[in-house]
Amino acid sequence: MRPMKTPPVFEKQEYLARLSKTRVEMDGRGLDAVMIFSPSNIYYLTGYSAGSGYVPQALLVKLDGDEPILLTRAMDAYTATDTAFMSEENVIGIPEALIGNSEKDGFDFITDHMKGIGLGNRKIGVEMGAGFSAANWVKVQSLLPDVTFSDFSSVVTWVRLIKSPAEIQCMREAALLSDHAMKTLVAAIGPGVLQREAGARVLAALARGPGDFGSSDVKHPSVPAGVRVRAPHLSWTDGAYTPGDPVNIELGGARHRYFAGLSRSVSVGQPTQERLDLHSAVLEGMERAAEKVRPGNLCGEVFDAFQSVIAPRGYTKTSRLGYSIGIDWLEETASLQHGDKTVFVPDMTMHMICGMWEEERTSCVLSETFLVTENGIEFLANTPRELFVRE
Amino acid sequence: MRPMKTPPVFEKQEYLARLSKTRVEMDGRGLDAVMIFSPSNIYYLTGYSAGSGYVPQALLVKLDGDEPILLTRAMDAYTATDTAFMSEENVIGIPEALIGNSEKDGFDFITDHMKGIGLGNRKIGVEMGAGFSAANWVKVQSLLPDVTFSDFSSVVTWVRLIKSPAEIQCMREAALLSDHAMKTLVAAIGPGVLQREAGARVLAALARGPGDFGSSDVKHPSVPAGVRVRAPHLSWTDGAYTPGDPVNIELGGARHRYFAGLSRSVSVGQPTQERLDLHSAVLEGMERAAEKVRPGNLCGEVFDAFQSVIAPRGYTKTSRLGYSIGIDWLEETASLQHGDKTVFVPDMTMHMICGMWEEERTSCVLSETFLVTENGIEFLANTPRELFVRE
Repeated sequence: MRPMKTPPVFEKQEYLARLSKTRVEMDGRGLDAVMIFSPSNIYYLTGYSAGSGYVPQALLVKLDGDEPILLTRAMDAYTATDTAFMSEENVIGIPEALIGNSEKDGFDFITDHMKGIGLGNRKIGVEMGAGFSAANWVKVQSLLPDVTFSDFSSVVTWVRLIKSPAEIQCMREAALLSDHAMKTLVAAIGPGVLQREAGARVLAALARGPGDFGSSDVKHPSVPAGVRVRAPHLSWTDGAYTPGDPVNIELGGARHRYFAGLSRSVSVGQPTQERLDLHSAVLEGMERAAEKVRPGNLCGEVFDAFQSVIAPRGYTKTSRLGYSIGIDWLEETASLQHGDKTVFVPDMTMHMICGMWEEERTSCVLSETFLVTENGIEFLANTPRELFVRE
Repeated sequence: MRPMKTPPVFEKQEYLARLSKTRVEMDGRGLDAVMIFSPSNIYYLTGYSAGSGYVPQALLVKLDGDEPILLTRAMDAYTATDTAFMSEENVIGIPEALIGNSEKDGFDFITDHMKGIGLGNRKIGVEMGAGFSAANWVKVQSLLPDVTFSDFSSVVTWVRLIKSPAEIQCMREAALLSDHAMKTLVAAIGPGVLQREAGARVLAALARGPGDFGSSDVKHPSVPAGVRVRAPHLSWTDGAYTPGDPVNIELGGARHRYFAGLSRSVSVGQPTQERLDLHSAVLEGMERAAEKVRPGNLCGEVFDAFQSVIAPRGYTKTSRLGYSIGIDWLEETASLQHGDKTVFVPDMTMHMICGMWEEERTSCVLSETFLVTENGIEFLANTPRELFVRE
């Protein structure tokens, strides 16, 4: 097979370190091997990057092995040999005849392979979350009746919590893309402008980037306008912006699949006093919340600090204030949520999203991706924290 | 709650017809209710559109009820009241306090609600595929110990197989976007052009559209170039196109989340004779395959017709030749795969993708989204079936 040319994103040593941390967790649980299904976790542990998670695939990590074994659709095995750090023999193509086949699927192949390498009667951890459906679980249990299974969900995601210097560099570069995309989008919005024209410009800005690199994985921004700003996850429409429209933007540049979320609000024409007041409360709340980000403090304290600023002004934040961010955006681990007991440690990256969608009268968003440092917080983006006015 | 302004995509009558077909399937299985988790199936049955499927949510359809009940994250319930056809009381927000909460999650709320409306000891079908993880399944079974569960996976996806006139209109409009995006991207590719600049242009073209509408749901195209064309699911890089590069494009415009896939190959500079020969074989194979698309024939015959053209020339197609397409692209039902017994009926829409990635020497792709008509096949897009040359 000809070598392909994509340069590796991280050094092999970095992948081996990630695997070592994972094996410590496996060892502590008495596991001989784990089956990893989360596409983000597979990318983290190997570098393999392709949108193949909609058909059966698995990464097998043995406690005593060297390289993990990736079993993925044959069509995508080429991509895997190109992008994953492992040697070619540890990428195994699942035959294409098992795609769209109602009698056998990739899990028949994966479990046969496991039996063949002596895993048919061992203690095996499985990721039970996204990427491994209920139907897959029923099938794998029946095909491996002699395996003792245990839950390995979110263990690798927790390993991802603390970022390496190389990962932090990706996040910084992603934030440069976020700044560029936000600047482009805000400038594109104005009275009479078609919403989809602004959408076209922000997507192009994310792909193009401001300098030597862009996003090869462009995630669709949320850009609701008008009364639609009460909902966080809406796109643009085929209509035009009209004077008086509030616009809420949530976007994120990506560098090697590491995302830096960034949100700002815009007013088409002059904003109402109500919206200015809300924005002012949110801005002050974010600043107060940021002061709580420092090693030793708890994630929940950040939420409480925000609430303590906005509550006396008559607002309530019912949704959490943020979450760990990195590969593919959301990491379902540490949460800036009332009561969250996760302790801040240096080199965590989080997305603090001060989104006020629940307000009947108005709505605004303000978010930043930050790095936890020895001394406190470092925001990765540089966009001014304004309520932008476009006339 | 203020009404929001997004016009409904389909008439209420259309949603009721979709629900009726679903209830026929429920009745045949003796089910009192079903839990729908696939975001695409929820969109199909209700119109609800937001990216909330990464946290617990469910659509409950009762056999004897009228409107279904959507339980989704409180933050997204606004979007649901805006986009779903149901009246407001049938959209129920799952409290935000259950997000990022390690003790309770949305399924505690969903199952409590089910008990409250008398479903705690009934026969209930569940979608076991994507959108419902192994962990969710373990939890739901333990919280509803008196329910008799059965598998309802892919039943609604099969209901989606035959498209209504309104859906076909969406597919036709999506194909217009695909043509526009392909034309823009092919024109953008050339020697020395940055790959990400071409990427920026195709994303913008998808969002902008050629006329009165664009895509509000832009799906990332695959655009591998150079040696990367051996893999189907790769994006652009930060590098430039160089003379001699093959480029394979797979993209799809979306209209109201209905996608029309379209693939073409490009040569930067003159293509090799080998690639011209492969393209010529693939083109003839597609034409022969298309002749087999007519009501009464089997999907598998289409694959065999393609293979019969290319095999004598020394090529082999190991992956399937296509699949049913519609909401969110792939519908995991009918497959243009050797042995597939699905019978063509009018108003099915499929993506015939004649992708030859496995070839060592070269690679090319050619795909069309088609509609099955009374008389045979209708291709929805109009892009010439050339191997485009950009010098």
